Amino acid sequence: MRALHFDGQVARVADVPLPEWTPGTAIVRVRLAGICNTDLELVRGYMGFRGTLGHELVGEVVDGPDAWRGRRVVGEINFACGACAWCARGLGRHCPQRTVMGIQGADGALAEFVRVPLVNLHCVPDGVSDDAAVFTEPLAAAFEILAQVRVASDRSSVVLGDGKLGLLAAQALAHAGARVLVVGKHAEKLAHVARRGIATTLLADWDRAAVDLVVEATGTAAGFELALAATRPRGTLVLKSTLAHGAPLNLAPLVIHEITVVGSRCGPFAPALAALAGGTVQVRQLISARYALRDATQALARAAEPGVLKVLVAP
Amino acid sequence: MRALHFDGQVARVADVPLPEWTPGTAIVRVRLAGICNTDLELVRGYMGFRGTLGHELVGEVVDGPDAWRGRRVVGEINFACGACAWCARGLGRHCPQRTVMGIQGADGALAEFVRVPLVNLHCVPDGVSDDAAVFTEPLAAAFEILAQVRVASDRSSVVLGDGKLGLLAAQALAHAGARVLVVGKHAEKLAHVARRGIATTLLADWDRAAVDLVVEATGTAAGFELALAATRPRGTLVLKSTLAHGAPLNLAPLVIHEITVVGSRCGPFAPALAALAGGTVQVRQLISARYALRDATQALARAAEPGVLKVLVAP
Repeated sequence: MRALHFDGQVARVADVPLPEWTPGTAIVRVRLAGICNTDLELVRGYMGFRGTLGHELVGEVVDGPDAWRGRRVVGEINFACGACAWCARGLGRHCPQRTVMGIQGADGALAEFVRVPLVNLHCVPDGVSDDAAVFTEPLAAAFEILAQVRVASDRSSVVLGDGKLGLLAAQALAHAGARVLVVGKHAEKLAHVARRGIATTLLADWDRAAVDLVVEATGTAAGFELALAATRPRGTLVLKSTLAHGAPLNLAPLVIHEITVVGSRCGPFAPALAALAGGTVQVRQLISARYALRDATQALARAAEPGVLKVLVAP
Repeated sequence: MRALHFDGQVARVADVPLPEWTPGTAIVRVRLAGICNTDLELVRGYMGFRGTLGHELVGEVVDGPDAWRGRRVVGEINFACGACAWCARGLGRHCPQRTVMGIQGADGALAEFVRVPLVNLHCVPDGVSDDAAVFTEPLAAAFEILAQVRVASDRSSVVLGDGKLGLLAAQALAHAGARVLVVGKHAEKLAHVARRGIATTLLADWDRAAVDLVVEATGTAAGFELALAATRPRGTLVLKSTLAHGAPLNLAPLVIHEITVVGSRCGPFAPALAALAGGTVQVRQLISARYALRDATQALARAAEPGVLKVLVAP
């Protein structure tokens, strides 16, 4: 089959063997896959990944137990052992033996087919289009914030960054009733959430009053320091970007103001799917471009361009 | 009077004006003052401080309301406005208008006399010697950890660093019933808490199993990254050191493992004094040297030497 394969040096569309069905898994025919900034990091060497890229998908089960065959599904990306203490606590996302679809030790979804453990699958409600369902994974990562910190209308919050993650995080916070202000550098990106009634401001115009909760979604060291400065004493900063570059950081404000920094990664699919089905979160306006799988390298390049939000790939 | 004065360039013992009594304050004759690593940072330019150094003291009220006169006291170091929302919540330690004794906008205690707001004073119980009472401020900073995170016998904890702060933090955790392991580089320093029944290990011998709670008390970027690695997924890292140097840091593990980092600064004096009075925390073995105030610059130099713990100065 065709897949976007990364050999450790170059990502290219290649013919690779079909994924083999094994008990407890399903083979999913990919209907639509999304490109994430993590994919761009992976092809720069992050995690030392080799294999088929892609961890955002909606597809259809073509092989597996009868109960799943033909179902339209999305798939959680952490493939856990199911036996350790983490898995017993329902936190397979932190299973130390886990592989991660298209990121670590498991082939991904920028392909015609992908193998996903059954426990990772969620059926997509009929009312949710493929274009919306393909956002389940990144939206779940945004919903993870709600599972980690208290979000409420009496708490002021700021999302720093108007990229895909920032715009999804802002909608997740608004969905939970938070007063949220999105701070970004691109009026046209901010407009996507402003249209949804969410307050926005350009960075240059921001008054920088410190707030209870700040979500750092710029992925830059400068953004992290700005986020620290925007968090009130004893406030909470949620860090969504991995900032793997070892940039110089001044953590003194974290200590002086006794700020709590919460690392936040993958999240729960169920509430994300429910929000997509209920229409409280809108994602389709975040689609910047669509490519065929045979042009997936161009899709990667496009996703890296400034001003581009979600790039989708259809096999 | 004589004081250790920092003019922005050099710290030297100088003759400075006596502090003037103002309503709501006490003039305290210093009996004993301690040197903190923050003092060493301040003379390297941290905070841009100018004035009399010193924020750890035990002394005797010589001017102020009759009820306070003659009392042996210790003093909280954040001088708050008393009128803002922070102060109303009892968090004058975060008052944005605050000055800080010997650190920011207020003269300190490495002097014959120091002026302290009455609301900052705590009487020292008779059973607590001057040698112990002078540790109240740094011990309170260690007790702050207990006010911020859940510490219990069912949670494994590691203190990274065997300096003054690490050894006090370890005792505070043990006092609260935590299982605690202190990891350091100096067998002779670790012995101070090992003698108290607290588990210790040299860094070279440490098995590095990840634990629920890690207290970073090394004050180095390498220590911070080691602390991140030692914190289990979804665990808590308490950051006590200011690391103001903008060192390159890799925060990716914080996000991947969804670690919570809690900045921790000054703490509550009352439980620290109670622990000193009750003998559940022992501090006098941490005294490495004593100097007269006229030799305070030598005391500063001594405090900066490797292997040295607390250096005390007596006016």
